[in-house]
Amino acid sequence: MYNDTTQAELDQVLVKAVNAFHQYKTFSLAQRANFMRTIAQEIEALGDELIQTAMAETNLPEARLVGERARTMFQLTSYAAAAEQGNWLEASIHTAVPDKTPPKPDLRKMLVPLGPVVVFGASNFPFAYSTAGGDTACAFAAGCPVIVKAHPAHAQTSTLMANAILTAAKKCNMPDGIFSHVYGAGFEVGEYLAKHDAVKAIGFTGSFGGGKALFDWANQRKNPIPVFAEMGSVNPIFILPEKVELESESLAKQLAGSITLGMGQFCTNPGLLITINSEGLERFIQHLKREIKSVSPAKMLHQGIATNYAEKLTKALAQKGVQLISQTDEEIEEGKGLITLATTNGKTFLENPILHQEVFGPYSLIVQCADEKEFLEVAKALEGQLTATLMATPNDIRAHQDLLNYIQDICGRFILNNVPTGVDVSLPMHHGGPFPASTDSRFTSVGADGIKRFARPLSYQNWDDEFLPDELKNTNPLQIWRTVNNELTREQIS
Amino acid sequence: MYNDTTQAELDQVLVKAVNAFHQYKTFSLAQRANFMRTIAQEIEALGDELIQTAMAETNLPEARLVGERARTMFQLTSYAAAAEQGNWLEASIHTAVPDKTPPKPDLRKMLVPLGPVVVFGASNFPFAYSTAGGDTACAFAAGCPVIVKAHPAHAQTSTLMANAILTAAKKCNMPDGIFSHVYGAGFEVGEYLAKHDAVKAIGFTGSFGGGKALFDWANQRKNPIPVFAEMGSVNPIFILPEKVELESESLAKQLAGSITLGMGQFCTNPGLLITINSEGLERFIQHLKREIKSVSPAKMLHQGIATNYAEKLTKALAQKGVQLISQTDEEIEEGKGLITLATTNGKTFLENPILHQEVFGPYSLIVQCADEKEFLEVAKALEGQLTATLMATPNDIRAHQDLLNYIQDICGRFILNNVPTGVDVSLPMHHGGPFPASTDSRFTSVGADGIKRFARPLSYQNWDDEFLPDELKNTNPLQIWRTVNNELTREQIS
Repeated sequence: MYNDTTQAELDQVLVKAVNAFHQYKTFSLAQRANFMRTIAQEIEALGDELIQTAMAETNLPEARLVGERARTMFQLTSYAAAAEQGNWLEASIHTAVPDKTPPKPDLRKMLVPLGPVVVFGASNFPFAYSTAGGDTACAFAAGCPVIVKAHPAHAQTSTLMANAILTAAKKCNMPDGIFSHVYGAGFEVGEYLAKHDAVKAIGFTGSFGGGKALFDWANQRKNPIPVFAEMGSVNPIFILPEKVELESESLAKQLAGSITLGMGQFCTNPGLLITINSEGLERFIQHLKREIKSVSPAKMLHQGIATNYAEKLTKALAQKGVQLISQTDEEIEEGKGLITLATTNGKTFLENPILHQEVFGPYSLIVQCADEKEFLEVAKALEGQLTATLMATPNDIRAHQDLLNYIQDICGRFILNNVPTGVDVSLPMHHGGPFPASTDSRFTSVGADGIKRFARPLSYQNWDDEFLPDELKNTNPLQIWRTVNNELTREQIS
Repeated sequence: MYNDTTQAELDQVLVKAVNAFHQYKTFSLAQRANFMRTIAQEIEALGDELIQTAMAETNLPEARLVGERARTMFQLTSYAAAAEQGNWLEASIHTAVPDKTPPKPDLRKMLVPLGPVVVFGASNFPFAYSTAGGDTACAFAAGCPVIVKAHPAHAQTSTLMANAILTAAKKCNMPDGIFSHVYGAGFEVGEYLAKHDAVKAIGFTGSFGGGKALFDWANQRKNPIPVFAEMGSVNPIFILPEKVELESESLAKQLAGSITLGMGQFCTNPGLLITINSEGLERFIQHLKREIKSVSPAKMLHQGIATNYAEKLTKALAQKGVQLISQTDEEIEEGKGLITLATTNGKTFLENPILHQEVFGPYSLIVQCADEKEFLEVAKALEGQLTATLMATPNDIRAHQDLLNYIQDICGRFILNNVPTGVDVSLPMHHGGPFPASTDSRFTSVGADGIKRFARPLSYQNWDDEFLPDELKNTNPLQIWRTVNNELTREQIS
């Protein structure tokens, strides 16, 4: 439907982005915020056409897409507010102390934008983590122009969103090149962009293969650039003994909802339930089986995802020592996914790395450990995760401090008696985890702290107040929080 | 003098570091700070032996080393204070809003340590950027154990420092493995450590070759880790027309001091003076020539550095279109460096990338541009730099806004009418710049913000107050600054 953007066109896009950067980075925080709020308005103005187009391209139900549109607009407006509030700038000042040995110069530091950012959106969030999604919002807030490569699975939705951004850019008198939208069915367009000297950072949400390729290209450049690839994970749920003994039924209900939510097509879908053999566990499994059986399968996002799910599922179930517990038994039409629950023991899990891999879709594996020792070994054997969840009573927690210590090292978000699906958009959210969950565990792709991904500190030494950016002037005209001579304050400097 | 640490010994060191991490990361900020302050005391207790040993190994004069020791102790104690103050934790909290759609969970985020850190010290700062230097201090503050590979050029000094750290560790009841000191004459020990799964981050100060090798090894691991390599730069000085016209003599004095300071052996040594042809420039060059001639050469850090300087200097001076302005003309003994000033025109500089490279030592190149246009082209052609300096009057600044805009993109610290040498230890210092000045322009290796290099965010969702770290408890027992429901506050949560 859309032709691949040619290399000559990409070159033009990149020249425009660089020129736009040199103007846009000098725009005030208020101007950036106004642009972001206008984008949110233009998304709303797309009305039902946006929802209908996305429904046709992604198989996602209307209510979900209406909710996701609201989330997308909230991201834009709340990150705009955070951009203006200015805490993300980490402004700090130390005034001169000329009579010290050696004399201390006047130093003032704040975050400044990196330059043009390329964004690769997610197939499972056609609005919130795609064209006008979190990465784009954060880059605009930081002061960077954005080039979005449309996701081939929802290129039409992406084009609508791109037009909304471009309309907002025109309304807000943004420089030409502040936003560009390009197409590519294969990897070539992405590779060209990732390797291009004009590109200064990359945001990506998707598969490990895609994210890792971008990471490698970016690091092999003459001037390496940061890649923020959120590549999903299996999101282990650690179920502790007293909890499963006392609450097997409610726990099963809670987890069944999370496992099957959105046909398991979330990067925070719980793909592993790690447990210790007990009578309570047997009851839990029976409850979970019944709960999951009651869910009707829906169409997956697109045929590619459905095929990929079927293949990975078959492979997982074919591993030695894996037993099927429950699977959708109705005849299902093409494109739907079989909701599946399987189990294995701790020893088998520890010996087979295939069982540690994500199966993107409505599948979970229960790992039944023989004892506490094996339970800890399984925890230690896991790779980096976006989330880890503990299902535990206070007694369980007190008795498993060593386990908690290890789990913290492998996850970006540590949840107690809650489910990992449902990624709240707020400042304390960390969406990102140790590799391979993401390529840079130090940055989040959800929440206003994501703005910092596209910025770096710059120190100004010995500048006259007149020539400093407003953020660092003595009078603090923006009234932002700054660390002045080691103390956080919003006061001006006299 | 010291045998290379064997692979079997390294494996043991790494096992101990991992075990130490699981204890040390649970230690309070006060315990970490106390450990760091005790290290500073133990360094002081080394007394004159430390100074004499370093003098013998590095050729640095006593006064400089006494000053550097004070700086090293100040780093430890001021980063300890910053660690306890807790602003670096970036603690943020959003309390639950259960009646929202979807309901907002209680989320609390703070930085947590990465794990064992390997530090490779600098040859030009045997105290402040070596064994007990900035990287080690930051890692301890963040909650990470440290493994230092002794710099072969000052291994004995390094061993003294290591012993001071180990004594402090014992006095403070630190876990075994909190600090290890290893030796390696070649690159093999470093490579083994950088590729080892137990190592979670690397701090390095030194050459581009060394830093880039570590960066590549770290990124090619199954689980890539961050490398903070500070690799030096040429630190361009941009001299604007009115400034040189009005202040040619004082400018020459100021710059000659910076160029020859410590025999040019600083990563912030100004290696390029970028100017526009004018009568004032000719006067400036004559003044600078005279000033530099008056400086007596001293021995360089060690023979390797002296040989390397001589080779790079010869290569730079042999480039077509480069003219020598001034060079030490006395007979100098082995190991000393020739203080050298050369010049070329803008066109030659733009066409020859060899002239853009750092010549580590007392050498500077004056680039004489034909006009404003060429001046801007030279600015745009430069690689990433730790610092860039503007020598300008207010009129100059107002007339060169476009130039300023471009310079900001290539440096980590932007200086006005001051010299880049003398890296102040304070929070607003940013020591790090776009590649190839450093491998990660988002983090500093000087100042307490360097602590953040060795930490990553972790979100806690839905945890009972009892089980949260003190930093995130409702009562805020540490009285740290936290962002609670989007507002910075030190208040407790009711």
